[in-house]
Amino acid sequence: MSEILGVGRFPIVDVWPVVDGGKFPTKAFVGEVLDFGATAFREGHDKLAVDLLLTSPAGVTSRHRMKLANAGLDSWLAKAQLSEEGDYKFQVAAWDDEFATWHHATEVKLQAGIDQELMMLEGQRLISRLAANAPKGAATKLKAIAKLLADTSSDPNSRFTEAHEAGLVELAEAHRLRERESLSAVYTIRCERRLAGSGSWYEFFPRSEGAKQNKDGTWVSGTFKTAAKSLDRVSQMGFEVLYLPPIHPIGSSHRKGRNNTLDAQPGDPGSPWAIGNVDGGHDAIHPDLGTEADFKAFVKKANKLGIEIAMDLALQASPDHPWVLSHPEWFTTRADGSIAYAENPPKKYQDIYPINFDNDLAGLLDEVHRICSKWISLGVKIFRVDNPHTKTVEFWQQFIARINREHPEVIFLAEAFTKPAMMHTLGKAGFQQSYTYFAWRNSKSDMVQYFNEVAHETANFFRPNFWVNTPDILTGYLQFGGKPAFKIRATIAATAGPSWGMYAGYELYEAVARPGSEENIDNEKYEYKDRDFAGALTRGASLAPRVRLLNQIRAENPAIGLLRNLKTHWSDDESVLVYSKRLEPEFNSGEDNTIIVVVNTDPHSVRSTIVHLDMAALELPGNFQVEDLITGKVYDWGEHNFVRLDSFDEPAHILRVIR
Amino acid sequence: MSEILGVGRFPIVDVWPVVDGGKFPTKAFVGEVLDFGATAFREGHDKLAVDLLLTSPAGVTSRHRMKLANAGLDSWLAKAQLSEEGDYKFQVAAWDDEFATWHHATEVKLQAGIDQELMMLEGQRLISRLAANAPKGAATKLKAIAKLLADTSSDPNSRFTEAHEAGLVELAEAHRLRERESLSAVYTIRCERRLAGSGSWYEFFPRSEGAKQNKDGTWVSGTFKTAAKSLDRVSQMGFEVLYLPPIHPIGSSHRKGRNNTLDAQPGDPGSPWAIGNVDGGHDAIHPDLGTEADFKAFVKKANKLGIEIAMDLALQASPDHPWVLSHPEWFTTRADGSIAYAENPPKKYQDIYPINFDNDLAGLLDEVHRICSKWISLGVKIFRVDNPHTKTVEFWQQFIARINREHPEVIFLAEAFTKPAMMHTLGKAGFQQSYTYFAWRNSKSDMVQYFNEVAHETANFFRPNFWVNTPDILTGYLQFGGKPAFKIRATIAATAGPSWGMYAGYELYEAVARPGSEENIDNEKYEYKDRDFAGALTRGASLAPRVRLLNQIRAENPAIGLLRNLKTHWSDDESVLVYSKRLEPEFNSGEDNTIIVVVNTDPHSVRSTIVHLDMAALELPGNFQVEDLITGKVYDWGEHNFVRLDSFDEPAHILRVIR
Repeated sequence: MSEILGVGRFPIVDVWPVVDGGKFPTKAFVGEVLDFGATAFREGHDKLAVDLLLTSPAGVTSRHRMKLANAGLDSWLAKAQLSEEGDYKFQVAAWDDEFATWHHATEVKLQAGIDQELMMLEGQRLISRLAANAPKGAATKLKAIAKLLADTSSDPNSRFTEAHEAGLVELAEAHRLRERESLSAVYTIRCERRLAGSGSWYEFFPRSEGAKQNKDGTWVSGTFKTAAKSLDRVSQMGFEVLYLPPIHPIGSSHRKGRNNTLDAQPGDPGSPWAIGNVDGGHDAIHPDLGTEADFKAFVKKANKLGIEIAMDLALQASPDHPWVLSHPEWFTTRADGSIAYAENPPKKYQDIYPINFDNDLAGLLDEVHRICSKWISLGVKIFRVDNPHTKTVEFWQQFIARINREHPEVIFLAEAFTKPAMMHTLGKAGFQQSYTYFAWRNSKSDMVQYFNEVAHETANFFRPNFWVNTPDILTGYLQFGGKPAFKIRATIAATAGPSWGMYAGYELYEAVARPGSEENIDNEKYEYKDRDFAGALTRGASLAPRVRLLNQIRAENPAIGLLRNLKTHWSDDESVLVYSKRLEPEFNSGEDNTIIVVVNTDPHSVRSTIVHLDMAALELPGNFQVEDLITGKVYDWGEHNFVRLDSFDEPAHILRVIR
Repeated sequence: MSEILGVGRFPIVDVWPVVDGGKFPTKAFVGEVLDFGATAFREGHDKLAVDLLLTSPAGVTSRHRMKLANAGLDSWLAKAQLSEEGDYKFQVAAWDDEFATWHHATEVKLQAGIDQELMMLEGQRLISRLAANAPKGAATKLKAIAKLLADTSSDPNSRFTEAHEAGLVELAEAHRLRERESLSAVYTIRCERRLAGSGSWYEFFPRSEGAKQNKDGTWVSGTFKTAAKSLDRVSQMGFEVLYLPPIHPIGSSHRKGRNNTLDAQPGDPGSPWAIGNVDGGHDAIHPDLGTEADFKAFVKKANKLGIEIAMDLALQASPDHPWVLSHPEWFTTRADGSIAYAENPPKKYQDIYPINFDNDLAGLLDEVHRICSKWISLGVKIFRVDNPHTKTVEFWQQFIARINREHPEVIFLAEAFTKPAMMHTLGKAGFQQSYTYFAWRNSKSDMVQYFNEVAHETANFFRPNFWVNTPDILTGYLQFGGKPAFKIRATIAATAGPSWGMYAGYELYEAVARPGSEENIDNEKYEYKDRDFAGALTRGASLAPRVRLLNQIRAENPAIGLLRNLKTHWSDDESVLVYSKRLEPEFNSGEDNTIIVVVNTDPHSVRSTIVHLDMAALELPGNFQVEDLITGKVYDWGEHNFVRLDSFDEPAHILRVIR
């Protein structure tokens, strides 16, 4: 039960950033700059000082003076950058700023000619107290100032001026008494490694990479060995994470055929998400892909290229999974003794047995821990979790905590497409990041609203990964927007999203959906794909060079990789989207990094309009220059700027401010 | 430090109504109907049930099924009325609604012709479990239904129908298993007596009631004996609380003269807020007013008329207060040895010594407790606290808790006019109610915004009292709006505010301010007033009959006395304000009470417009009748209604819906 608490000598309320009153840690990643806030106030007219106390994972506490950001609302603000992995602690302190009170009253009263000698005496008394608390050198100077203030042989105004010349303000500032200090509760920020919140992702099916169709129409599966060659392609595009759909043996019972048909034909490889058969379950590798040694070599090559491998964690089983016999209690047994397959009545998904987490939670925690530990030992540090919202949240909270206790570097990406309460709670419960509805936010107004939501309203517990497509998602915008649509969406995802992702085939502008669906026709989930990436590149028919440029711009501009700094600006055109990201020089080795992106979100038009910048938010001077990182052109810019964006040619400016 | 908590089997978040995550109790008063809410959800497609568990101060727990108010947001809602004084506790429970899951799946599958016998078997198994948990009579019926479902001699559709005829749904509803129940934290609602949140207040200076000016210009003070006669006038207007400015001896040092001048003339009575002289301090009665026996008689007569006396609690002293000698540590001593008077540099208020709460908090708590206990023993149960925001909040939190532990019926009204953080925190710290900025919210748009703020955003911790005027407040709207302005403001305050207040003279349309100020000229704070209330009544020049009608309408319509039910509606005119208050029949002995108020807020015009009602919010039928409680006229109303309001004649409709 919650307790009724004291307000303290100086009330401190609405401390920020806090998740659900401190029930869950606030999320951050290394390099992030956080706004810390609080509402703190006092009775009467005297002055209050407010500090942020921030304790690093290593146990070092730093004190940051907070600024009065809004006097009417008594709101205080400080910015701080987090640089270590681990749990930071913070709290807010408010104390009686006696020096500021006296200093202000003295200024006013000297000018009004009232109480002049009295204020000098008050000053003597106060400064003497500061001296008593200061180290020797400063104490000597403070005592001299105290004496000077009380010396009635000269005019009080002159004495006050002389005291300033003797360092009154600086000394008082450095040796505050902090009387009657009130403290807020202590809150936790979990600061994780950069990839937990910021990175570029690519997805391919290893069985397709190197797959070849024989003349008789049968296929030879790609393997980890052939897929390893494709890592160069991924690296050339500048991706940091490569996500693989499940690599485990695939069930044959009720196997899905091409285009999600119910009657698989001989040779159809089946959906990798129908996990398990006599060859093994979640801890095994599909024999077609190779051996554990092949997988290790694949991971090793990826790592050498600066790419981490993300593995799929799909907690469900095909009817042929070893668990069905060894652990029937992990499934639901129906009244007729059969094991329940997945269904959403009247729809049936007979190729999948869902896990029942209520019968043996501890056993499942142990088993999934065993499985993930194995893959971690083989070099996997990222798991993309399939449909986490169909499993219990308490399982994820306990499971992720257990893995992260042993391996704090391990990252879980939630493939959650569901209602906000579940998506947000999965983040609070431990998922480092989540898929989002970005793919369906295509209009300017939708994106402005959505950027504000993910970068500000929910940023303390929900880290978005902006995927432009997946094997499950080929939006109408991409289906009907032509090549400009692909360019526009990749540009926005890569520059607005601290994390963004792309599924193989996007760079080839694959835009045809299975009729009536929002996913690719002849979907790779159910068949092999032998794509001619190199040929497209040669023919100039590939988006890969643009993707490479986008990832290079990300790598060179640290502001882009942040989340909480995403800010939208106004343009007069309903389709021209404008946003910025800034990393202030004090948090970037003295170098300012301000990026302004302007995109025509209509893939079928040329738009001319005026862009209006929030100059104060970006601390911009009236006139400045910007360099377009796409074209290399330099423009003179100010608060209001003409832009013309031709979607058929180049739909975006990615501008770096030259300061 | 805050702890990281488990999400539970079924996550329950955003429980409502809660103040600062449960740090402070939620405010309510007897008779209030509260909306209880929570966001609760589960994995997958199965059904969830959510209950509110409400425990009364007497310790009786009731369970209220919550309704899914918004499926997309997973938000659940229940309404409950509080009827006892004391601390209620509540929490939210979410559990696996197996019956609803089975029932829904069975309906769908029977219709689709799939798994029909299997669903009957599942039903048999589930209903048998319900039977095992039910008392004998119900168990027998449930067992019969279970048997029936499994009886393959008839068609499954017929069995399902028969089971319904045998009471399947009602029995299952009454004997749920509530498996896997998750519980939220427990939160507190402090339910106080009605006057803590709802009442009509009047203010007069007892020294003016019966005061007479001699022919030589000198005055004879009114006394409790003469003021007792005025109680009849207050009672006739229907007021429930009479607030008296301080009744203590008044200091003579730096006494303020008429119209706040610094040079009081002989015979000037001084401001009652400059408390204390040789005759005593906060525990004494000004000799001019009479004796303690006179005060007791005054209180007794008031109580007999249904009026409670509210006393002023102004924690400050005149330089002549006994504390100055007996307890100099309760003030601030300056560097020159003098006691600090009030000031806001360069302004000085030398007639007032502020209290310093930092030197001896415990001593002050004891002394103020002693003083208030004395007045409580003399029949005072309400204190109007002068300028609480210039004292420390921690003092108020500890002081009010101490008084309320001994006397839970005692009410403190905060005369706080300051920034929102302080005003709100005083409410959280214990003040039962507060003055508000209502007096300065005169336009329709300002009131719509303000009503939403006080009735919804802050209602859990801040209870508004809408005063139309005070000795300190005579707004420009009243100064220049003529008699219609007085009628309009009283009408709105009395019907929108659960508590409202009026200072003597308002009924006489006193509208002249001291030049350059927003308070009455020849202010009663510094002199006696002998007003001719009776004469004005006789001449038809008094607002008293309207005030009487307003308070009578309040008494007869319990919906008006509530806060959280205040809802604004649309009108097409920028000056025609529309709002409603409803008390549903289930919370009012079966009788619906819906009041719709329409006011022309422009005191200088006649306005015709269309009023548009939110029919769903008030659960109104398409056509209905309303009775105007001012004129007695009955109108046919619907969703869109023509109104014409002439401020020079009658600026308002107060309509009761006839259902």
